[in-house]
Formats: sequence, structure tokens, C-alpha cells
Amino acid sequence: MIDCSPGFETSPWELRWCGLDLEAMHRTESIFALSNGHLGLRGTFEEGEPVGLPGTYLNGFYEKRRLPYAEAGYGYPEVGQTIVNVTDGKIIRLFVEDEPMDMRYGKCLEHERTLDFRSGTLRRNTVWSSPTGRVVRIRSERLVSFTDRAVAAIRYEVEPLDGDLDLVVQSDLLANEPVPIPGGDPRLAAALEQPLVADFAAAHDLSAVLAHHTRRSELRMAAGMDHELEVSATPRCSVRVEDDLARVTIAADVPGGQRLRLTKFLGYGWSSRRSTPALRAQVEAALAAGMETGWDALLRRQRDYLDQFWATADVEIDGDPELQQAVRFALFHVLQAGARGESRAIPAKGLTGPGYDGHAFWDTETFVLPVLTCTVPLAAGQALRWRHSTLDLARRRARELGQSGAMFPWRSINGEEGSGYWPTGTAAVHVNADIADATARYLAATQDEEFETDCGVELLVETARLWAGLGHHNSSGVFRIDGVTGPDEYSALADNNVFTNLMAQRNLREAAAACARRPDMAGKLGVEPDEIARWRDGADRMAVPYNDKLGVHEQSEGFTRYARWDFAATAPTSYPLLLNYPYFELYRKQVIKQADLTLAMYLCPTAFTADQKARNFDYYDALTVRDSSLSACTQAVLAAEVGHLSLAFDYFVEAAFTDLHDLHHNVAHGLHIASLAGTWLCCVGGFGGMRDCGDTLIFAPRLPDQLDRLSFRMAWRGRRIRVEITAESAEYALLEGDSLELTHHGRDFTLAEQPVTLPIPRLSSRPAPEVPHGRRPYRRL
Amino acid sequence: MIDCSPGFETSPWELRWCGLDLEAMHRTESIFALSNGHLGLRGTFEEGEPVGLPGTYLNGFYEKRRLPYAEAGYGYPEVGQTIVNVTDGKIIRLFVEDEPMDMRYGKCLEHERTLDFRSGTLRRNTVWSSPTGRVVRIRSERLVSFTDRAVAAIRYEVEPLDGDLDLVVQSDLLANEPVPIPGGDPRLAAALEQPLVADFAAAHDLSAVLAHHTRRSELRMAAGMDHELEVSATPRCSVRVEDDLARVTIAADVPGGQRLRLTKFLGYGWSSRRSTPALRAQVEAALAAGMETGWDALLRRQRDYLDQFWATADVEIDGDPELQQAVRFALFHVLQAGARGESRAIPAKGLTGPGYDGHAFWDTETFVLPVLTCTVPLAAGQALRWRHSTLDLARRRARELGQSGAMFPWRSINGEEGSGYWPTGTAAVHVNADIADATARYLAATQDEEFETDCGVELLVETARLWAGLGHHNSSGVFRIDGVTGPDEYSALADNNVFTNLMAQRNLREAAAACARRPDMAGKLGVEPDEIARWRDGADRMAVPYNDKLGVHEQSEGFTRYARWDFAATAPTSYPLLLNYPYFELYRKQVIKQADLTLAMYLCPTAFTADQKARNFDYYDALTVRDSSLSACTQAVLAAEVGHLSLAFDYFVEAAFTDLHDLHHNVAHGLHIASLAGTWLCCVGGFGGMRDCGDTLIFAPRLPDQLDRLSFRMAWRGRRIRVEITAESAEYALLEGDSLELTHHGRDFTLAEQPVTLPIPRLSSRPAPEVPHGRRPYRRL
Repeated sequence: MIDCSPGFETSPWELRWCGLDLEAMHRTESIFALSNGHLGLRGTFEEGEPVGLPGTYLNGFYEKRRLPYAEAGYGYPEVGQTIVNVTDGKIIRLFVEDEPMDMRYGKCLEHERTLDFRSGTLRRNTVWSSPTGRVVRIRSERLVSFTDRAVAAIRYEVEPLDGDLDLVVQSDLLANEPVPIPGGDPRLAAALEQPLVADFAAAHDLSAVLAHHTRRSELRMAAGMDHELEVSATPRCSVRVEDDLARVTIAADVPGGQRLRLTKFLGYGWSSRRSTPALRAQVEAALAAGMETGWDALLRRQRDYLDQFWATADVEIDGDPELQQAVRFALFHVLQAGARGESRAIPAKGLTGPGYDGHAFWDTETFVLPVLTCTVPLAAGQALRWRHSTLDLARRRARELGQSGAMFPWRSINGEEGSGYWPTGTAAVHVNADIADATARYLAATQDEEFETDCGVELLVETARLWAGLGHHNSSGVFRIDGVTGPDEYSALADNNVFTNLMAQRNLREAAAACARRPDMAGKLGVEPDEIARWRDGADRMAVPYNDKLGVHEQSEGFTRYARWDFAATAPTSYPLLLNYPYFELYRKQVIKQADLTLAMYLCPTAFTADQKARNFDYYDALTVRDSSLSACTQAVLAAEVGHLSLAFDYFVEAAFTDLHDLHHNVAHGLHIASLAGTWLCCVGGFGGMRDCGDTLIFAPRLPDQLDRLSFRMAWRGRRIRVEITAESAEYALLEGDSLELTHHGRDFTLAEQPVTLPIPRLSSRPAPEVPHGRRPYRRL
Repeated sequence: MIDCSPGFETSPWELRWCGLDLEAMHRTESIFALSNGHLGLRGTFEEGEPVGLPGTYLNGFYEKRRLPYAEAGYGYPEVGQTIVNVTDGKIIRLFVEDEPMDMRYGKCLEHERTLDFRSGTLRRNTVWSSPTGRVVRIRSERLVSFTDRAVAAIRYEVEPLDGDLDLVVQSDLLANEPVPIPGGDPRLAAALEQPLVADFAAAHDLSAVLAHHTRRSELRMAAGMDHELEVSATPRCSVRVEDDLARVTIAADVPGGQRLRLTKFLGYGWSSRRSTPALRAQVEAALAAGMETGWDALLRRQRDYLDQFWATADVEIDGDPELQQAVRFALFHVLQAGARGESRAIPAKGLTGPGYDGHAFWDTETFVLPVLTCTVPLAAGQALRWRHSTLDLARRRARELGQSGAMFPWRSINGEEGSGYWPTGTAAVHVNADIADATARYLAATQDEEFETDCGVELLVETARLWAGLGHHNSSGVFRIDGVTGPDEYSALADNNVFTNLMAQRNLREAAAACARRPDMAGKLGVEPDEIARWRDGADRMAVPYNDKLGVHEQSEGFTRYARWDFAATAPTSYPLLLNYPYFELYRKQVIKQADLTLAMYLCPTAFTADQKARNFDYYDALTVRDSSLSACTQAVLAAEVGHLSLAFDYFVEAAFTDLHDLHHNVAHGLHIASLAGTWLCCVGGFGGMRDCGDTLIFAPRLPDQLDRLSFRMAWRGRRIRVEITAESAEYALLEGDSLELTHHGRDFTLAEQPVTLPIPRLSSRPAPEVPHGRRPYRRL
């Protein structure tokens, strides 16, 4: 029998789950998902069942759904988008002497699955005894190729452990697989039950292709499989296809001690424009290339790709092996979400599950792209190119809502607004400044002129135009932005939200700077000097409400005058509050779902003095309940900046284990990619004190007592650098590229070939703020 | 042929439509609706077709419908209610020599319909020539009895005008009549198509009964008919019933110059508790009583009832016959909406159409009950008893939303919240203060101790408790009410809305006063002296935001800092704005849908100085677009108070003709009962300057140049008085009851048997404010 209790094992470069726990299946399927940002496979078992939530996703491939309203309103989106579980190619069913291999039956004698962060594969090792006592070992390894984005592959081996066995293996492509519908929602069911309409099916030898399209969104896709079989006995092979199923069947009598090894190659493609024959050809070409490359070479390319990634992106932690693992797990999944999206969005859940309907939000620009910009800059640029490709839709949306410039959607797959609740959807216009911020940050970090020409200037200009129209000067000349919603979704439709206003200010200034830098582009976009002057003026006179009496900024105008939420009277079971209190009550009280002003202090660090940051952090931290996974990382970063290192560590732990320990009880529907990215932000922005929103990279490293050493790498303007932090000092090393100017705790220095070691100034201790009653950061047992 | 162009004719005591205009049918059906507040019949033709929107309504009889949301939220109501078109008993079909009488065919030689405000009947006189040229005169008269609330009756006469004619008359009860579904909404259709399930059908002689129940709300109803037939020839009569149809058929050969007269008696009943046999018995008893009373006596009782009503409620206008008619039309429909509701709501559309799903809103308490309180006090008391009967639901709703006391629904038929858009639904908590205001106003006007004991104190206490919990003291001790929505639905979720805060203040004080007056009731309700002290304190320290710079109150905190709506750039076709702009844009600008602060100045007159009222009125009038029919009357009242008499007259005209001239293009779905009530408010509150929110009735009469004389009557504490206003003076007369103290333009006087004539002080003229570009008050051609 299995000799370990089910759960994750700690290891620096892999995530291993040892033992069988069917209850945990839903979340392990998300955690063990493989993806390259274009194609995603949830970590389901090859046998197809037992399964929590089957999932095979193609980035950008969605079905439409009707968005209904009890009371209609002008400008409400009527059609939403929802990610589709496409044709499943992961399935390899096994029959042992006529008994289906199903881990719910028989006995599982060994079982282990390993997600390897360096090989980029998911491995499995299972020893199973059938209900009648026949024992087999099953090993599998699968990958979704980072280098060949249309290709995935699975190596599957079966070994009889107690003498000869009759084995039958069925390798499937299965379309319209039944999926559980969240909340039993009948409207969602209407969109998601049998979403694929069969267009074409063909098979020969050990290969097959199925082509389908979606009923309403009319997107076309094709999936293909081909196989290599190694078995000592002479197998009996057949293949057949139906509309929604292609099946290769292999029957073999395998002698004890021998094994059957099947290598399955998968190719996927989709398009809104290309025909079914073209898609079929595309998939068959991908398969042919994958077969030609072969399993071993695919593995090698995968490892090379990851070696490069880690050389730029690795974070090392001494003193907490679990955290070391969690941080690499996080980086691995951020890479998987963004690596090869190529002009598609990076959804909030990546391609790990159907949560949030597969939509992308502001999370991408604010949490994920800052990480990718410093680790896989190309991927960050591609994600911003996706935004740019939706600019016409955003301009149309702005016109529809009576605004200037562009209004990007709050949530979307295809660029159209998909939010069905406008007060924290459409009204959360900060998404536009967030996109501009990510654009400016990317430009500063990469100096990618092609991107600037193709996309960057236009993104900055069109978002700046929105702010110029949205704000207005009051009678004292202050530039106000009224009636918008900031990041904190427990407030809505507020005036002069500091986060929004400061981000808009940055947006206006970056647009003005871009136009000054690129007068050619400015001319093309019809930007006149008067318009730029208005942007500068709006930015300079931006309202930033401050409560003199309390000595803190106001999250938005009047916020500090609201009644404080009664945290002491709120039971732990009442969280997340939005499931137990009406918005009516939440909006009118001082209670914060997720960092808002605190996030402004991170993203616009120069808009606050150190004293203000300290007072603001303490004031707002005591109100922030972290009902969103986007909060802990920001709180960690600012806690570190204002000197609460132990609290920063606690928030870091919460961010790092959000998915691994399923802190929000919804990992089954997919990982929180932004929170995973936030884990990196905790290390680099938090304990590294890195700020990259200007022309110089700034560091202010400081280690919490709980860690012995923290080292991270990053890319910046063609360099690669490493920063290694201990309690006393930080060592900066240039791994690649020309020397550059950096700042360490306010002191400028030049980093050239020789590493530079600088002392870390002592911290004068300050008592940490009280966190809301019952909402202490997560602590591991 | 008809010798008048189709349209209304002016007449002081009736509304006559002369000529045939099938295009106008939808709205005339609403305008000619008959109702006693319990049973309502739309003014459709007896023949059943042509028809705009068939409608027979029983107050409180509804079907449930699902309220869907694109994104769900805590506390959102999931089940809504919608008024049902019940079994139609109005139908009397006629066949003339085998040709169906249908005004779309043949020729209409004469056609006239008259709603008589004194007889309380709808009369019709039609001369019709069939396609083959046979000519008949059809006269009908119908009533819904004010005295016998379950009974309606129709007298129907056919007279051959060109020799003998074979006539067939079919008198029907028809259930599940097809109705057009607004906007083709499939969810509404699901609730409203075939809403009635047949339970029972029986017939004998010329009578029949059908009993049904609703599918989801499980309410039961029965409708019965019986007939008296007068015809010289020997008729051939038969009756038959099916599940959804009962039909009495009369065939007779009527000689020229003779006539066939059918008197149809209808009885209706519904219940959520009584069984089908009990309902059948109830309906048959009502029918028997109606038949026993007989047509002539029913007519007489109807006239007596109305004579009494007009003796208390009549308004006379000299100098504008159209307005005279419009005001009586308005009063007649207000009476019809409220007369015999008897512990049911008064819906926004009365029982004249299916608009707003048949829901009641705050309109009832704020606009309709002030009129009924002074004209049919019993009906006002009954409507408040309905609110009281829903108190348990309101308490439960308050608990659900984390509030104290009671939270009444924004819209409802049965007392449960039916609003599917919370920012201007649930968040418009002022409805609770409006109910308290109507309660206090009713108590002051009637001194109805039984009501006070049964309902009044409890209504005041439970609503006061809501405010005590909803508000909070800020650090300077000011009592704030944050994040609520006032009457103006182009603003939402604002802080310290002046209307809400002042109405809450009144609510808290009235509750405290009621508890002081009735310690027995206070004790029963568990009100401790401490609680009362908190109410008084909250009221005394209530926040009432004021902009010192502009010298005006703020509609809500910060409102005057918003950008002003660009009225000049708004096309006339862009109104109502809510159909052409998103809430996002409306909420963040200075633009007002309907009187808000101006309504506060009317309902809480002592909270403002005369100067403040004048400045506030001018400031806010220039922002108010009147996209709601609830606005013009309030603006008229305040315009009169601050001395803009000509503007007041214009708003009065707009209010008076809102339905008759279909100014909001939706009269087809029912009349705007609150706006009709507002017509009375214009006369009495506006030009009469009457204020009844204290212990003394206050008047400040002043006539606009456009009128020669205005006289109105009202009831107050057992008295009936008449006030007659001319340009120079006002005469006060006591028509019934003991002498009383009144105030005339700030001067107290005693009104006893002798009429008192007092001069009207001269008005110093002041320029009227500019109304929003393109939104001048309605003017008649």
C-alpha cells in the first residue's frame, strides 16, 4: 500500500503529490495543469475518470452567452464570452484483463505525480491492483511544448507486475465531454453543454483528426493525434472516428517484466477566419513536425527553454524550503500562462481552469506583466499587443458610453466588455490606466522601439484621451475624476479615488512624454500640442484627497468619514464578505476588499512621502480583509517598504500558498495567476524593494528574520542582473549586458562586471498595525 | 360619417373621445379604465377586438417571475412579481347578420366614448355599418362599483337602424387571453403566457363561473357573470363552459326601431388561502347581490359615492377649461386607484395597465397618499395598513441586509423586494422615511387612534430603527447617512442626500413623538428611553450638506462639485437620458432626473429659510430634466412658493396633461397615478400654498396670471373646508365640523362658521431660472 499520507512533498525544483486523494482531485487538476499560454491541459488522469473538471483550453477560443438583467440599462453588454473545454486529447484509457483501470476501484499501491519546473513536464507513477488482483505499473509523462506551441505529447507506459497480462489501450480525442456547470446556471449550461458542432473527422493508421466549430461565436478548431507504439508482443491496432470521438485501440498480450509504451502526440489549432480544411492541414502539419522532432527532442527543447527562463527569472530562498518551492511553482505557472499567448490575453486563471469564464482582467497588466516584463519580456510585449489589437473595440465602447479615447473592457476574452455588473465593472475605469502603466513599464524595461511604434504610443494616447474627457476642473482648478471604482471592490462609484487619479496622472504624463519622444506617431494619431498641454495640466492639477486631521490620504474623497466596519462582530464564516453582506452595506463602510491606496503607493511610489506611506499603510491595512487574492502581495510589498518586515513575511506566505493550500477554496476552477505573480512581487518588490516605474531601477532590499537569504534575477534593458540579499548586505551582480546605474536604499551606484556588495541600513522598529479582527494572514501549521 | 376629428373634447365633468382612431387605442384604453382599487377593467371595446392591450386586474393578484442577473450578488431578489391579466368579463361580442362587429371593418358612422366623473361610468355610443351595409347603433355603459367592490356591470344595447336584423350576442368570460409581452422579454413571457390554470367551470341559465389559479404564486381566483336580457323578440339563449371560456349566446331577430338590451353583471374574487369552492361561493354571492341591487341602483350608489367624494375633493378652476377637466380627470383616477384597495397596495399605474409589472413604489406614500389623506382619508389609512401588513417581510429584509428595524421594498406587489437593480432600488432607502412621513401626515390629518394603535406607532418605530442603525456619528458628532440613493435616479449611492436625511430626521422625531404619546405601544415594541434619546440625537445632529460658496444646499455631499451636464450638446431625441446614456455617465454629472432637493423643500419646509429655498430652487431647477413624471408637480409647488408663478403654471400644465397628452409615450401601459395626484398637489400645495406636515394647516395662496379663480376643498381632522383663491384674496369657508386654526401667508386665524376673506400679499418679482436647454415645460398647442 501507499506509504505516505496524501499531499504535497517539499522539494526545491518540483511539486510532488504522493498518495491518492480523490477529494483533492479538483484542485490538483488545476495545480498540475500544463500550458504554454496557447494550449492548456488540466492535470486530469489519462484514464479520463475519475475526474473533477475535465479541461483542455485554447487561448481565445470561447463561446458566446447571453447576459441577462432583471432590469436593463443603457450600455449593458448583452453578450458575454465563456471559455470552452475543447476536444480532449489527454485521454488514454487502459483495460487490464478486461477491467477498466479506474482508481476509484481496485487498490492503488503506489501513486505519485510530479510537476517538474525544470523539465516542464508532469510525471506520474502509479501501481494499481485491479479488483481481481492483477497488478500493473503505469508511468506517464506529459508536456505542452513551449517551443512548439501547437504541440503536446504524452508518454504512457504500462508494465504488468504479476505475470503476463492482456492489455487494451484506447487513446482518444473526445469532443463535447460533459463538464459540470458552476452553480447549475441554466444560461451558462445553454452555452456550455455540447458547445462544439462537428465539421470533419478522419483517421488512418494510428492518427486521427477532428474538426469542430462553436455554435454562436462561430470559431473553428481542429485537434489531431498520432502515436508511436513500443511493445514486445504483436499488438492488434485499430482506429475509428465519429463526429465527437476519434479512438485508436491497441490490444496486446504483454509478458510480465515487459512493458507497453505509447507516445501520443497532439496538435491543436483554431481560427475565426481560416476554413476547416486549412485548420486540418495546420494540425496535421503540427503533428508531423512533432513526430519528426520526437519525444526525446521535445523533452530536450522544453528543458532548454526552461533553463533559459530560470537563468533570468529564478528566485532562491534560504531558510524556508516550502517557500522556495512555492515561489518556483508560482513562477512556473506565470510562465505557463504567458509564454506563448502571442497576441491573446492572459486570462486570470491562465489556461488552468474555467474560473471567471476564462476572462482576462486588469490583473494581467498590474500583477502579471510586471513580472513577465522582468523575466520573459517578449511575453509581456505580446500580451500588450493583444490589448492593442482590441483598440478599435475599446474606442467603440468609449463612444457608446459617451467618452473620449478608448475604454478597455473590465473582463473579456475577445476585447468586448463582458462585465454584467457595471459598478465594479465598467466603472472600474482604472483598467485603462493599468494598461498604460504596463505599457510604460514595458517600454522603460525593454526600450522596444518596434512595440512603441506599433502599439505603445497609441495605447498611451488613447487611454490618456479617456482621462482628459473623464475628468473636469472644478472651480478652484483642481482636476477631478468623479464616480469611478478603484481596485477595492468593497467601494464603488466614488470620487477621486487616489489609485485611479494617480494612475491617470501617470497615464497622462506618459502619453505626453511618448508624444514628445515620437512626434511622428503623435502626428499620425492627430495629437495637437494643445491636447498634450491639457494632459499635462490635468496631471499637474489632479485631485489627491488627503485627510489632514487623520494625516492620511483618503482612498477616495470622503472615505475616511464612513463608519468603520464592525470587524469584531463579523464571524470568520462571514468571509468573503460579498457572499454574506449586500454591496449596499459594504460600499458605505470603511472596509476594503483588496489593496487600493496601498497599491497606489506601490505603483506610484513618488506621489507619497515616506511618512505618508507609513501612516497610510497602517490606517488602511487595519481595514483590508483580503477577500481578493490580489491583495496579500501588495500588502507584503508595502509592509516591507514601511518597515513591518515580519508582517510582510506573513503576507508573502499568504500570497505564496494561496493556490497550493487553496486559501480561497476555488482552486478547482483554476489557479490565481495574478496572485502567483504576486509571489514574485513580494520577493522582488517587497524584500528587494525594487521599483521600476522610472528610468532607473531602484532597490531597497531588506530581509525578514524568517529568511536567511533571498536571491533573485531579472532582465532590464538588455541586461540580466542578480540581487542577493542577506540580513546585513545585498550583493548586486551583472550576469549579462552593459554596466548600468542602480539605486540601493537611496544611494546611486554603477553595476559593472564586478559584483557590488552594499550594506543594508538598520531599520528603526515600529509596531505593526492591527489587522482586521479574525483576518490575520494565513499561517502554515 | 363621423363629424368630428378624433380626440378628446373639453367638458368640465367628463372626458369624451369623439371619433374612431385605432392608433390611439392603446392610450385610450388606459385613460378610459375603470377601477375601484380592487378590480380594474381597461377601457377596451366590448367586442374584444380591436384591442391594444387587454387588461382585467385584481389588486394583489400576481404571478411570480425569475429575476436573472448576469452577475449575482448577495441579497439580490431572485423572484419578482408581475400583475396578471385575469379572466376577462368585459367581452360582449356582436354578430350582425352573421358578420362580426369589428370596427376595423365596415364603417363607423358615429363613435363616442365618455368617462363621466360624476356617474363613475364609461359610456359608449357607436353607429356602425357592416361591410355589407347593415347599420346598428350600439350603446354601452359600464361601471366598476365603488360600493360593491367585487362587482362590475355592463349595460349593452343594440339597435338595428335599417330594418330588422338577425343579431347574435356572445357574452364571455375569457381566461388566458393573449397579451403582448413588453419588449418581447422571454422571461416575462414565461411568467405571463397562459398564467392561469383552470380549476373549475360551471354554468346554468345565463350565468357562469370560472375558477383558476396561478402556476407559481399559487393564488386562486374566480370570476362569474350573470345577465338580464331585454328584447322584444323571443331570443334563443344558450350557455357553455370550457376550462378557459364561459359563453352565453343570445340569438334574436330584432325588428328595426326595437333594441336588444343585455345587462351583464360580473363578480370577482381571489385569495391566497381560501379554497376554490369558497371562492366560487364568494363570487356567486357577489353576483347574486349585484343582481338583487340591480343596474339602476348600482348606478345610483355609484353617483352617491362620487357626490360625496366631490363634495370633499373638488377643485374648480376658472380661466382654463381644459385644465379644469384635466384636474377632475386626475382626481377621478386617483380615487379609482385607491378607493377600495383595502389592505392592498396602490400600484404606480393603479389598475389601469401592466406598466412597472403592477408594482407599488414610494410614489404612493409621497404623492398619492397626501391627496387621499385630504380627500378620502379612509383610503389613505387602508393603503398604510397594507404597508403595515408587510412589516414582517420588511423586518426580515432588514435582517437579510444587516440592518435594524424594517426595510420596505423599493417595488412590490406582495411586500417582497422586487427590484432587480439595487443602486436605485434597495439603496433608495428613503422609501422607509416616505412611509413614515405618510403615516405621520395621516395621523395628523385624521387623529385616527385605532390606526395609530394598530399600525401607526409600529410603522414609525420600525422605520426609525432603520435610520438609527443606518446612520453613524462622525468624529465631530454629525450624524451621517452614507451610500444611499435619493429620489433623483440620475444620482446613486451618494452620501448625506439632503432629502433622505431630512426625511429620516422627520421619521426619527415622529417616532419619538409617537412613543411619548403612546407609552403603552412603545413598551409593547420594546422601545427604551435610551433608544428614543438616540433617535432625537440623530435627528438633531443630522448632516445637511450646504455649499457656502454657492449659497445652496448640496443634493448630496459633493454634488455641486460634479461637472455640469452638457445640456446644450444633448439632442432632444436623447431624452429620456437613461435610454441614451449609461448610468456611469449620468451619476457622475450634475443632472437631475426628478425633483430631489426640491422635493425635500416641499416635504420638510421648515428645514430651509425662504432665501435658501429661492436659491436652491433656481440652482436645481436648471439641472432637472424631468425624465420622470414625478417631477413637474413638485417643481410647480416650489416654483409657486419661491415666486415663479408663471413657471409654476407651466409645470402644473405639464403635470396635468402628462397622461391625457401622453407626454412620456407610455400611457398605453397605464396611467401615472402619482403624477395625476401631483396635479392636485400643484393646485393645493402650489397655488394654495398648503402645508400639512405640522399640527396646523398652513396656506399661502397665490394665483398665476393664467387663472382667474381656483377653489379647492379638503378634509382635515373631521372638518371639510373650502379655499377659494382669486388674484387679490382668498376666501376660507368651513363646510363641516368645528372651527379650526389656520395660517394664511404666515398669519394665524380662526375659521368658524363665517367664511374668512384675506388679502394676498403682493409678490416682488424675480427672474425665473433657466430650465435645461431643450427641456422647457410642456405647452399645449
